[in-house]
This record gives sequence, structure tokens and C-alpha cells, in this order.
Amino acid sequence: MKEQTIQLNLSPERKPKPQSEELGFGKIFTDHMFIMDYTEGQGWHDPRIVPYQPISLDPACMIFHYGQTVFEGLKAYLTEDNRVLLFRPQKNFERLNRSNERLCIPPVDEEFALEALKQLISVEKDWIPNAEGTSLYIRPFIISTEPFLGVAPSSRYKFMIILSPVGAYYKEGIHPVKILVESEFVRAVAGGTGEAKTAGNYASSLKAQEIADGKGYTQVLWLDGLEKKYIEEVGSMNVFFKINGEIVTPALNGSILEGVTRNSVIELLKSWDLPVTERRLAMEEIREAYKSGQLEEAFGTGTAAVISPIGELLWNDEKMIINEGTTGPIAKKLYSTITGIQNGKEQDPFNWTVEVEQYAATK
Amino acid sequence: MKEQTIQLNLSPERKPKPQSEELGFGKIFTDHMFIMDYTEGQGWHDPRIVPYQPISLDPACMIFHYGQTVFEGLKAYLTEDNRVLLFRPQKNFERLNRSNERLCIPPVDEEFALEALKQLISVEKDWIPNAEGTSLYIRPFIISTEPFLGVAPSSRYKFMIILSPVGAYYKEGIHPVKILVESEFVRAVAGGTGEAKTAGNYASSLKAQEIADGKGYTQVLWLDGLEKKYIEEVGSMNVFFKINGEIVTPALNGSILEGVTRNSVIELLKSWDLPVTERRLAMEEIREAYKSGQLEEAFGTGTAAVISPIGELLWNDEKMIINEGTTGPIAKKLYSTITGIQNGKEQDPFNWTVEVEQYAATK
Ligand SMILES: Cc1ncc(COP(=O)(O)O)c(C=O)c1O
Ligand SMILES: Cc1ncc(COP(=O)(O)O)c(C=O)c1O
Repeated sequence: MKEQTIQLNLSPERKPKPQSEELGFGKIFTDHMFIMDYTEGQGWHDPRIVPYQPISLDPACMIFHYGQTVFEGLKAYLTEDNRVLLFRPQKNFERLNRSNERLCIPPVDEEFALEALKQLISVEKDWIPNAEGTSLYIRPFIISTEPFLGVAPSSRYKFMIILSPVGAYYKEGIHPVKILVESEFVRAVAGGTGEAKTAGNYASSLKAQEIADGKGYTQVLWLDGLEKKYIEEVGSMNVFFKINGEIVTPALNGSILEGVTRNSVIELLKSWDLPVTERRLAMEEIREAYKSGQLEEAFGTGTAAVISPIGELLWNDEKMIINEGTTGPIAKKLYSTITGIQNGKEQDPFNWTVEVEQYAATK
Repeated sequence: MKEQTIQLNLSPERKPKPQSEELGFGKIFTDHMFIMDYTEGQGWHDPRIVPYQPISLDPACMIFHYGQTVFEGLKAYLTEDNRVLLFRPQKNFERLNRSNERLCIPPVDEEFALEALKQLISVEKDWIPNAEGTSLYIRPFIISTEPFLGVAPSSRYKFMIILSPVGAYYKEGIHPVKILVESEFVRAVAGGTGEAKTAGNYASSLKAQEIADGKGYTQVLWLDGLEKKYIEEVGSMNVFFKINGEIVTPALNGSILEGVTRNSVIELLKSWDLPVTERRLAMEEIREAYKSGQLEEAFGTGTAAVISPIGELLWNDEKMIINEGTTGPIAKKLYSTITGIQNGKEQDPFNWTVEVEQYAATK
């Protein structure tokens, strides 16, 4: 697979680039995309970079009926000296393959996928916005394309990468968000697909999200599906709490997505000699810490927002205002350190960033 | 909505019809499909019957990423006197709307959807196979089509109906199948999407199904996601057991799909004065009944197979052979009665069938 060369079919026309004020999240796409196909017996084949364009699929394709699909999300950043950095992209392709395994999708060659991503970004370098907090969002995904109405793994797939220049994910910016603790709906349960980045997990979250929206909350905090007692994660973030000096995040228990940002936060905190514990964490413990004044900070971690301080939690009818609704010092330091590493302004002691060279052929 | 007329754009070419021996399940599609679009602010619009063809979608369409989609499955049957019958189609469109509600998809007008289906079938009448056990499988489905990489309900959808002439679903025909009781993976849990007919439920089932396949079992029997003790349903069937004279099926608890066949079986059994109980049913109870010789019958119910007798259950390492691996008398009677009603050979005391008239405009 690694030997395959990526065909380049560049678009004669280029779309106008948006102003940085016009950037939202995931609405604008660049001029090109990467695509390769999988056929049973043949493996992944025909890798190519082509003009961004609609895909044409038989209405019986399995993706439309049985949701056999996985995706990833990461970002490319432009440094002040005009270099392009990716943040730990290998982790995303490793996770993609873990998701593939759960969804019975054939694995991709992780090195080749990264190479494809680099070439695509090299073609689209001019699309990376450079204003503070902006970046190029990267969406690799795989869909099952066999036209067959039977519940079985597909014999054909498409792997694609599309790119979207983005502004800040949360309208509130780095300001704290309000989160609703979900007591009725369930996102995932051990033995299900919660650990995988797959469409169904997000489809099932829409209803709770819609209700939270209506009440003025940004996202929901999921509790475990069994007892609805233990904290799992937020809609698209992992979550951390500082309780009486101890920083705690729910352990990876099989129903939580293993976030790349979560992992980076844990590494950083350790390197700062701040104790961080991965363990089971009951919502009741948070409530008691809150009551006794020991709930010092709470924040979410994810590619979109990087660090998202939590200023308020609503659990049933109980409202908990955290850190007087302001951003705490740990969230602040993590945010500036990680974004600093991502955009090349800070040292990168862990070698997290991967530079994208300019490929001669892509211009 | 009901006022809208359905545009007819008939194909100048017709594909050759398959021989009845060539019919599998869900691989061959007819010459036309029904499609209508939803746009926020405008509602469902542009209903049309067009040649069966690929659909062209932006790679950012939400269906590819967040799985906001629902589907249905029902069948049309050709009677000996050349009439076309649908089996309780209203129930499928009611269930479609219940699924829509759970997935935050705007409802469709159920009467209009049925009207659209009738017109489509009228166009495709020649595709309905007439050999014993064959039928025309009908797949209505809705996909979210807004090109947006944010987790939120889509502002655009497509509702489609495609048709596939099918033979018998199980290779084994009405013969008993072997079912593996799943102890590791979980399909659904209360608060999740188990009650809805949506893609993610099936994606999450692939892994367990693949393992069962490898061991020579046709499908898996799901236990509840909380304690893995109580019986839920089979991959694409509800399930009934006869224990010491009592016919039992798991009660609708929020994580089981409410099958149309399940409901029909319950009605029929009641009309025959056979006691049937909907209640919680532990796998351990089945095991004990088996040991004491009181497990008299077991069968699955679903549109594809209608009634599928279960000849063997494997739970952990324990093998239970039911009714000596043969089809029991109740399964047999239910099968012949329901298929008889469906193909017009038996009386239809409940008015379950709906006849599809020939529309003048469709020929
Ligand atoms: C459910 C869920 N949890 C957590 C995360 C955070 O993961 P990461 O830090 O890799 O972006 C995401 C993705 O962004 C997610 O979708
Ligand atoms: C999960 C599941 N359970 C049960 C059934 C049976 O439902 P019905 O009798 O309406 O076909 C189906 C669908 O066919 C199904 O997909």
C-alpha cells in the first residue's frame, strides 16, 4: 500500500477564500479532497487528490441503511513563520483503525494515510487561516458503499479526507460554557460503540443535545448507561475536574472516546508535577465537592475547542456554578500551552507537532 | 402535503427481471424509486418517481458523519389472482415517524407516504415475483443531507423508497436456525436508540454478528445492556418462547424494536385463545425451562423471515436444542397463517392487508 502513488488531479478553478470573520465551523470546504477505494480481494486502491465534489452513490449503499462508518477530526495550524503543523496526527490514524476494528471495516495503512493527508494539505496550504484561534479542520472518514440491504460488513468502502477552514468552535471562545448533566438519554454503554468514533454515537446524542440547547446549555455531560451515576464525557469532549487539589478524569472504561487532547492534557499535567488521576468519578462526588467548596475547576478537552472551561453544571434541578463562572488557572495554562505548541509559538518538548513540507508536485 | 402531486418521470429502459432462483435478498433493485426532499422552512417538497439511479451528495453531508437517518422494511405480495397486497403498511410509517422523533428528523405525512408507495409499486408491479415465499421488499429511508460538520439536526433531508424483489431471507427457509446468545457486545440500552429503526443500531451489531457467523450461528440473541441477563431480541427479529404452555415475548422496554410481525403474532395468538405474555424474560429462565424439559418452542418474528423457528441456542458454552431442532406446531401455524394472509390465500379477519390499485398514469 505504501508504494502506491497518489494521483493528482488539480482543479483549474479555485474558490475565493473566506475572511477570517466569516469562518464558522465545518461549513466551508477547500478546493480538493483525498479519496481512495476499497474492494474486497483488492484492498485499498486508487488513492487520489481530486477537486472537491459531490460523490455519487447507489441509494442501496450500506452507509445509508446500516451506518457502517468511522471518522476522525484533527487540525492543521499555520505558524507565524509560515510553516504548517499537524498536532499528533498519528494518534488520529491509530484511533481510526481502532474504530475500524470495532465497526468491521478493513484497516488503513496509518503511515500512508498520514502521507496522503500531508500531500492534500500541501495542495491546500493557502486555505489555512492565520488569525488567532483559527485553523484548518481535517475530517478523514470511511463509508461503506456496497449496494446491499443486508446487515453484514460491506465489501466496498471509500476513505476520504476533506478540509474546512474554521474559526473558534464555541461562540463563547475560551470563556466558560454551561453544561447540562443528562439524566434521561444514554450515549453509550460498555459492549457498545462508545469507544469508537462512529456516526451512530452522534445520531443518538442529538435528542439530548436539542433539549439542552433549548434550556440554554452548550452541550450535555453524559453519565454511564448502566446506573446513570458515573461521569463519562461531554458531547465532543472528554472532561476533567479539579477537586480539592486532585485533578480527575474518568478512566477509559470502554464506553468513552479516548481523546487525543485528553491524552495530551494528562501528559502536560504530569510534566508540571500536578497529580492527575484516571478513575471512576460519580456525579454525586462532584455535587459533594461543590457543596463543600472543593470543586475548584472543571473543563472539557477536544480538538475543536482544545480546552473548554465549564462555568456551570446543571444536574436535575441543581445548578453548580464553578469557579464563579470564570476560567480557572489550570484550564488557562493548558489552553495557552497546547495552542502555543500547535501554532508553533511555544516549545514542543514532546515532539507532538508534525510539519507538513511543501511537495513540489502539488503546486 | 397531501395535496402535492407526485411527478412521474418513467425510465425509457427497463432492466431484465431476474428468474426466481436468482433472487437473493436486497441485491437487485427495480427500475424506479420514489424521492422527496426536505428543506427547513419549506417542509417536504418535490415528491417524484424517477428512474432508479445513484444520488449525488456533498462529502460533508451529515449522513456520512453523524448517522442521522432512519429506515423501514416491509413487503408487497402478488396474489394468485394477480392483485398486489401490502401487509399493515400504516404500521411501518407510524414507526418511521417514531424513529424520526427519536432522531430529530421532521415527520412525514403517513398517508402521503403510503400513497407514494402505492404509486411506486403500481409502476413496478411487474417486478413482484410470484414464486412461493418470494415478494417485493420495500425500503423507505430518510437521510440527512446538509453539508455541515457540526453535531446538530440537519436542515435538509431526502426521503426515498427503493424496491427489491427477494427470495427467502434465510438460506435455511422455514427450517430452524441456530442462534448465539451474545454475552459480550451490547446492541442497545434504555435511553439509547434501540426502539428506533436507525443505522447505528445495526452498525454496532456487526461485530457480534461476524463472530456468530464464524461459529456457524445465523444471528445473535441480544441480552439487555445493563445486566446482560434479560432477553431483548434477535438481530432483525423479535423473539418468542413457549415455556410450559405459556407463550412469552420480552415486553417493549425502550430498547427493543416494536416489530410489526411481533404485534401480528400477539394478535393472532390471542384470537386463537393461546395465552401470550409480554414481560421481562431472563435467559436463566430459558435455561431452567430447557433443563426441566419445559422449553417447548422458540421462534423469531420479522418482516424478512416472517417466522423463523429457533432450533438451537448457544449461551456461553451451553447448547440448548429446542424441539429436537425441528419447527414447532405454533411456529408452523403462525407462519402458514401470516404468509397466507399476506399472499391472499387465507382470510384476513383483521383487515391487515392493503391492496395496491393500478394507477392509470403509471403505465
Ligand atoms: C465523543 C467525543 N469525546 C471526546 C472527543 C475529544 O477527542 P479529541 O481530543 O481527540 O478531539 C471527541 C472528539 O472530538 C468526541 O467526539
Ligand atoms: C432490530 C429488529 N428487531 C425486530 C425486527 C422485526 O420487525 P418487523 O416485524 O416490523 O419486521 C426488525 C426488523 O425487521 C429489526 O430490525
